[in-house]
Amino acid sequence: MAKKENSEEIYNKARQVISGGVSRNTVFRMPYPNYANSASGCYITDIDGTVRTDFANNMAALIHGHSFPPIVDAVIEQLKKGTAYTLASEIEVAFATHLIERVPSFERIRFMNSGTEAVMAMIKASRAFTGRPKIAKAEGAYHGTYDFAEVSQMADPSNWGKEDQPSSVPLAHGTPPCVAKDVVIYPYNNIERTLNILDKHAEDIACVIVDPVPHRVGLVPGNHDFIEALYAWTRKNEALLVFDEVVTFRVNYGGAQENYSVKPDLTSLGKIIGGGFPVGAVAGRADVMQVFDPHEKNLLLPYSGTFSANPITMTAGYQAMKYFDSEAVQQLNSLADIAVKQIREAIKLAGVPFSVTGAGSMFRIHLRPDPPTTYREAYQDKEGKKLVNELLDYMYYKENTLMINTFSCMLSTVMTQKEIDQLTEGLFRAFKALKPKIEKLNND
Amino acid sequence: MAKKENSEEIYNKARQVISGGVSRNTVFRMPYPNYANSASGCYITDIDGTVRTDFANNMAALIHGHSFPPIVDAVIEQLKKGTAYTLASEIEVAFATHLIERVPSFERIRFMNSGTEAVMAMIKASRAFTGRPKIAKAEGAYHGTYDFAEVSQMADPSNWGKEDQPSSVPLAHGTPPCVAKDVVIYPYNNIERTLNILDKHAEDIACVIVDPVPHRVGLVPGNHDFIEALYAWTRKNEALLVFDEVVTFRVNYGGAQENYSVKPDLTSLGKIIGGGFPVGAVAGRADVMQVFDPHEKNLLLPYSGTFSANPITMTAGYQAMKYFDSEAVQQLNSLADIAVKQIREAIKLAGVPFSVTGAGSMFRIHLRPDPPTTYREAYQDKEGKKLVNELLDYMYYKENTLMINTFSCMLSTVMTQKEIDQLTEGLFRAFKALKPKIEKLNND
Ligand SMILES: Cc1ncc(COP(=O)(O)O)c(C=O)c1O
Ligand SMILES: Cc1ncc(COP(=O)(O)O)c(C=O)c1O
Repeated sequence: MAKKENSEEIYNKARQVISGGVSRNTVFRMPYPNYANSASGCYITDIDGTVRTDFANNMAALIHGHSFPPIVDAVIEQLKKGTAYTLASEIEVAFATHLIERVPSFERIRFMNSGTEAVMAMIKASRAFTGRPKIAKAEGAYHGTYDFAEVSQMADPSNWGKEDQPSSVPLAHGTPPCVAKDVVIYPYNNIERTLNILDKHAEDIACVIVDPVPHRVGLVPGNHDFIEALYAWTRKNEALLVFDEVVTFRVNYGGAQENYSVKPDLTSLGKIIGGGFPVGAVAGRADVMQVFDPHEKNLLLPYSGTFSANPITMTAGYQAMKYFDSEAVQQLNSLADIAVKQIREAIKLAGVPFSVTGAGSMFRIHLRPDPPTTYREAYQDKEGKKLVNELLDYMYYKENTLMINTFSCMLSTVMTQKEIDQLTEGLFRAFKALKPKIEKLNND
Repeated sequence: MAKKENSEEIYNKARQVISGGVSRNTVFRMPYPNYANSASGCYITDIDGTVRTDFANNMAALIHGHSFPPIVDAVIEQLKKGTAYTLASEIEVAFATHLIERVPSFERIRFMNSGTEAVMAMIKASRAFTGRPKIAKAEGAYHGTYDFAEVSQMADPSNWGKEDQPSSVPLAHGTPPCVAKDVVIYPYNNIERTLNILDKHAEDIACVIVDPVPHRVGLVPGNHDFIEALYAWTRKNEALLVFDEVVTFRVNYGGAQENYSVKPDLTSLGKIIGGGFPVGAVAGRADVMQVFDPHEKNLLLPYSGTFSANPITMTAGYQAMKYFDSEAVQQLNSLADIAVKQIREAIKLAGVPFSVTGAGSMFRIHLRPDPPTTYREAYQDKEGKKLVNELLDYMYYKENTLMINTFSCMLSTVMTQKEIDQLTEGLFRAFKALKPKIEKLNND
């Protein structure tokens, strides 16, 4: 029998057939990524035999961890009846009804295959409803790979411009110049500057996009005043306020939007609502969603998708969300509160100048004593990024703990105090081990 | 026990929660769509109890029909080990290797979640490689819902402009005007006009996109001379020639591109390569694909996707393609040849002025005596569309035959002569039943 290959050997083959050896840069790791063998609950075993506790949960997509039995069972049932038809399927209607009942701002919904598709459809729907070309988004916010949504996602000091007038920085090389021109960048949580900027484009803005706890901006929740000011501005200027809740939907039973007194007109969803299968969705006001309705004589936004609302994703997603009921949400958020408290203690005990931000079942550790409040504060330069990677590597290789590459965790409902203790103790050891480098960074 | 609801009742509920009652306009049907109960092989049963022969195969996505046992078995196996990880997985490398070996133009590949994402990534990669903003696409060609790819997808006589200079017509209401400005529209299969148009934008064109058998243009294969002329033009002008084979990959073992002496630089894939699960991919020249490689110091095209290359899609897709080997392709194409021959006989016998186009295992029936050669010839006005819908309804309700809404069929490997005879006889009856209306249309 041939010896089973290890991860390094497979990766060397992968580089010969896949550009960079991975289809997703988020699973890329130097010198090579490990290949998964199997995963169950909050544990994931690679083909080299290492078991790790999974705090990444496929980039926040698995709210019940891996191989959640109610999902596995229901999917097997559906699998035998087919995975995709050119007919409608009942499970889509049942799942849509569940989500609509779950969130007050959802009156109608449509499903897609990814968060990228959801954000793109949400932007297109906003333009179709208002007839306007521009969108506004927060500097540094990640909203998927639609090029308009990508502008200023990785802005850096060399190109981000003045604080009161952030530049629109295209992400991909070769992005048509007109893309950045139609994207207005605002500084998150800064009311005065944001309104000044929006006012300059008041008649052209179709929608203001807000991630209510933007991961790459710093995983800092939007201030109530800020969200209310955006709402008021959009009412006054006949624009839409739209939320990207692809990640944040987990924050409360009804999404992060439950925290605010105002409601978004549209919301994009993804990740956890797919139960581990590819998914996206746009939900919101019935009159806005009508742009998708093929009954309309003058259909404003023709839309299809070969795998949209396929019965496997709908089945898995419905199971995932049914089991993520109010009680489960609360329990998980309490566990995250404990984790954050413990990590803050570990920071103090280790004597490192770190801080923690987050909301609901998500948190992120920052290499600065005060939690950042803006993207520019959260921004890591090359040295900072290097140190984050060393901390992540320590956790991954020495503590067998898989975190998200921003030094963040996204918990799952199958976790217990045991895994939180493991995490905290691991972090404590990592902080201590890298303390000399941490101090050096802070003195440089 | 409550009476089970029928499709009409479910659809009435669906309209209260889903915009238009469907997430995909392709499954929309007046007065209401039927809901699938289960499907196996080439038969699909709705919840109202009707069994139909499925010639649509989820819009050409299911090459082995429904519930193909090798796919079901392999997916159940993987399902128990997890559906998505923040680690790489071996099956992605195995499947990538299979596809790279299958097609000479594929040197590197990357996976996505839909054809829409694949075409978008292909366009972004072309821009990143060339540093140019514009793309060229065929009038009437469907390439998914990325707005640049949508331009002139539904151009009509009121807006399509002169034949030698087709207008760039945005699809969705509110599309930023600059989108259409960066999309050059060419008339399919017309070398002289196309080269004249391309020449006007020679320095700005990143890629010329070609669907080698564009469904909505008329399901007419690209002429050899035409494809070769585009290839020569792109070599001369330092642009890329890129193929959209999301649908046409089924045409030969190595895709429709096998028919031509020249190779595309990049190809987008989707549909059948997912084995019934959401999928997309971009494959092509290693130096172009390098824009995705995170090893590069100056990464030109940062790219991720939460569900891209998930092990379920990779498992199902690999099974689907392994079983779609050279022999299976040939057998299926022969069956399609027989079907087309029989349909042409039915047309003659019924005495209706129809024609058939297609390639490989796909064909489309047109309401005109000579097969169309361009989008404008294939274009159906309102009366024509109405008649196509009546023919489709006849097939659907009276003959229990599900076709694609362009009056097309996409065969699956589990079909036999029996289903082809059913189809042909059904079409013959439909032609005869609607002959008075057909004659009226042609005399108007
Ligand atoms: C806030 C946000 N929006 C959109 C997306 C895009 O989702 P997907 O990766 O499914 O395309 C992501 C993915 O990480 C996200 O974090
Ligand atoms: C030629 C072509 N390209 C791209 C697409 C988009 O694929 P998807 O529906 O998976 O987004 C389609 C879908 O029908 C297609 O026919």
